[in-house]
Order: sequence, then C-alpha cells, then structure tokens
Amino acid sequence: MKTISENRAFGGVQGVYSHASEVCGCDMTFGMFLPEEAEHDPVPVLWYLSGLTCTHENAMVKAGAQAWAAEQGIALIFPDTSPRGPGVSNDDAFDLGQGAGFYVNATETPWAANFQMWDYITDELPRLLFSAYPLDESRQAITGHSMGGHGALTIAMSIPGRFRSVSAFAPIANPTASDWGRKQFTAYLGADTAKWAAHDASLLMKKRGFDGPILIDQGGSDQFLDLLRPEALAEAAASARQNITFRMQKGYDHSYFFVSTFMEDHISFHADALYA
Amino acid sequence: MKTISENRAFGGVQGVYSHASEVCGCDMTFGMFLPEEAEHDPVPVLWYLSGLTCTHENAMVKAGAQAWAAEQGIALIFPDTSPRGPGVSNDDAFDLGQGAGFYVNATETPWAANFQMWDYITDELPRLLFSAYPLDESRQAITGHSMGGHGALTIAMSIPGRFRSVSAFAPIANPTASDWGRKQFTAYLGADTAKWAAHDASLLMKKRGFDGPILIDQGGSDQFLDLLRPEALAEAAASARQNITFRMQKGYDHSYFFVSTFMEDHISFHADALYA
Repeated sequence: MKTISENRAFGGVQGVYSHASEVCGCDMTFGMFLPEEAEHDPVPVLWYLSGLTCTHENAMVKAGAQAWAAEQGIALIFPDTSPRGPGVSNDDAFDLGQGAGFYVNATETPWAANFQMWDYITDELPRLLFSAYPLDESRQAITGHSMGGHGALTIAMSIPGRFRSVSAFAPIANPTASDWGRKQFTAYLGADTAKWAAHDASLLMKKRGFDGPILIDQGGSDQFLDLLRPEALAEAAASARQNITFRMQKGYDHSYFFVSTFMEDHISFHADALYA
Repeated sequence: MKTISENRAFGGVQGVYSHASEVCGCDMTFGMFLPEEAEHDPVPVLWYLSGLTCTHENAMVKAGAQAWAAEQGIALIFPDTSPRGPGVSNDDAFDLGQGAGFYVNATETPWAANFQMWDYITDELPRLLFSAYPLDESRQAITGHSMGGHGALTIAMSIPGRFRSVSAFAPIANPTASDWGRKQFTAYLGADTAKWAAHDASLLMKKRGFDGPILIDQGGSDQFLDLLRPEALAEAAASARQNITFRMQKGYDHSYFFVSTFMEDHISFHADALYA
C-alpha cells in the first residue's frame, strides 16, 4: 500500500492510497476519510461509489461528505470506478472502458483482463482495508451516485447481511432497459441478456429486495432522467413492499451540487442504521 | 349551522358542527380544530379526508393531529365521508353507500340523489366555512387516509392552484384497477370506465400531476396493499417527475397507529408550504 496523500480534515484524515490489484491486474487508487474516533477505536464504514468519468477523487473533493461523516464518526471509502493505466483497455466513449467499469466482472474480450470491478469492490478492496485500518467490518453501509448508485444498490442486494443500509443519488436504476446499461453490458458481459439481470437494481428489487432501509434521492430536473429510469425502481420497490424512502427533488440536476445538497440527509440516514 | 360540541384542545378549540347540505340533500356533520391563533387572525387550513367506514370523528379522535396543528397555528377540517341518515340510500357492504362516498358525484340510481361528495368537499363546505370562520382561503392544504387519501390526491390534482401541498396516508392509489374502486365507480358513476379516470390518482398523476409538493406514507405491512396499489402511484409520480416524497414504512399497517405515528411529519410538511 502506497500513501499518495494525507490531509487532516474535520478532525480526521482524508487520505489517498494506491495498491497493486490482483483482480484488476493494475494499480488501483482509492480515497479514505477516517474520522477522529478512528484514532482509538474501529469505526463504521460508508462506501461511496462514483459515477461515469469519475475517479476516486470527485466525490472526495466535491460531495462535502466529510463534514457529516466526521460529525457521525463514520469512515468514508471512495474507490475508483474502473481499472486504469496504459496497459488497460479503453474506448473513446466516456461511458465505456476506463472510468466506466459499471461494477461488473467483465467476461468479454478485451475487457475481461482488467475490468473485474465487482470482485474488486466486494472482495479484494474490503479485505485489504479491514486488515489494514481501524474499520468495523460489522458496521458497513453503501451509497453512490449515478453509475455508483447502480453499483451500491446491486451490490447491497446481492450480498445480504453485509450492509445495514443503502442509499443512492440519481442511480442508474434499470440499466437493462437503458442505453446506460445495454451498451456496457453487451461489451462487458456479452449479448446474452440473461446475464445482465444480476446487475439491474430494479430487477433485483423485484427478485429479492434489500433487508434494511433504502434512501433514494433523484433530481426532478436531472438531464439524464430517460437514461436513469427512476420510475422502474420506484415501481419495483413499492411492489416489493421494500422499506424505502424515494424522493424526487424538484429542480435539481445530476451534478455534485445536487449530491452535496442532500449528503447530510444520506449520512444521517446511514448513521441511524450503523449505530442502531 | 348547529354546534354539536366544542372542546378546548391544545390551546384552541375542537368543534363538531352540522348543517343542512344542499348538494347532499341531508344534514352533514364535520369536525374542525381552530388553533389559538384563530382568535385574532385568519389561519391556514389543512383538510383531512377520512377512509371507508369513518365519520368526521375517527381522525379527530385518533390521529393526534391537533397537537401538531396547534404548534403550527393551522386549522384542521374533518368532513364526513358520505351523506347519512334514514332517507339516504345505503348498502350492506362496508365499502359502498354510507361511509363510502369515495369523493365523487354519483350519477347512477339510487346514489345520485345524495352522494355528491365531490361538490360537497370542493364547493359547498368550503364556501360555508370560509364565510363563517377565521380561515385563510389563500392558504389551504389537503391530506387523507385510504379512501380519504384518494380523495385528497384526486381533488388536489383536479383543482390547480387551490392547495399548496397534498399528502396521503396509505391512499387508494389506483382505484380503476382495484376492487376498492371498480365496484364503487360502477355503482356511483356507471359502467362506462372512461368516466372513472378523473377519480384515479395514478391516472391523474400521469395526465397532469400536482403543481406543488406531495408526501405519501404507506405501511409496508398494510393488510390492504393489494387494494391500495401504491406501486402504480409511485411509478406514475416518478414518470411524471412529480415533486414527491414517497415513503414505504416498514412494519406499519393500515390503522390509525400508523397514521398517528407519521402525523407530525405530514403537518410539518404542509406547514412548510402554507407558510412559504
């Protein structure tokens, strides 16, 4: 593990670290905020998964999450959104390849060699973090924005018992029915659409749901509403009688101004679950 | 207007009054809570429409709304749910006839003679109240439970500009697709389903929506979920990009224990709109 930077922030430390990833076959970088409480005891963890084009850095710098995490004594993890580097496959489009891992394990050429983000986020990175830092593995929650909201929801529903709560800001909610999903799943997972269902939050909601509370915020003036398909998730969650709060926030768009506006609510929501 | 009872409550007055209704062709009874502020100035108004089998009295006694209305300086109106009396048609079923007006103007025999609840709630009763009491007609909001949630949503969407906010507890959300709706609409409005659409919150949401905020609470363990169809409204609202907060409340049922639990949130929500 290599320390890229460490900055004191809100009484704790905002760090950036890199490590050699076995599953992604490249060096991976992540951000981590440790609140002051981590100096003496393991603290609860909130994972924040970012959206298309983002690195570990965007939310760390623009979401304003540390203020509230510090208030609640919660650690924040900001993973990258894909493998990266000159030896890693890429595409000219902003929504495929580097910066667009979509939180799946690619099975197709050329992506399979490095794009194993599901295993990275659910297995390799947590094993590394929980062995190296004062983090309480029994108290985890997960959130994310856009593609990261998709990641948070699909991962939380697929690994029952790991996360006490899940939230999302403007998640890609129904990728099997959207151009943010079909294109990437075809590239990463192949043309067999049966393999896509495990990575669609609305389909997972209908199939199994989440055994804990969910909070969703969606901007009513989001420029990507047609691609995000919040209505599919809203319908699925209500049909499943899922414990959920779904909020359509009038006038907000897809930006970090939207995310930061509602960050306090999300961290407070997760704190309720993490300290229950 | 005849005073049935008046009781001081939370610094104000909880009254019950009756009057001869022209549109319903019978005497009608309603409850009204006036907060202390009404002693010197007109106050904002929150209408509360009740559900099947209820009179003006159920919510007035069991919802605990006066405490929060008093805190916010808001008046509460509790109308009855249908015309009543020995000269008024009825049915042995609890969900048709007296106690089950469904907030429509009946056109069919034998109901048309008295069951004009749409006109009563939207025209006759407000005209009477605003001429007789210190109520601010320019600051109105509306809520309701079950059949009353259906009434609140359909009325608010159908009269743009009258209500600043609307909320509902476990509303009958899609009556044209439910046995709580098809049966009653057939009886009151006739078999032509085209006439039903104006009284279905999910269809109205798709057609026009509401120009203001909406709050919906639905118990996740509600025994009538299949009849209420919250998923239809959730999908419609998200598709319409409606400014809405939809909450599925885990473990709550259809009772007034559910309603009273979340009443503070609803009155606070309406106060934000009424005092904006």
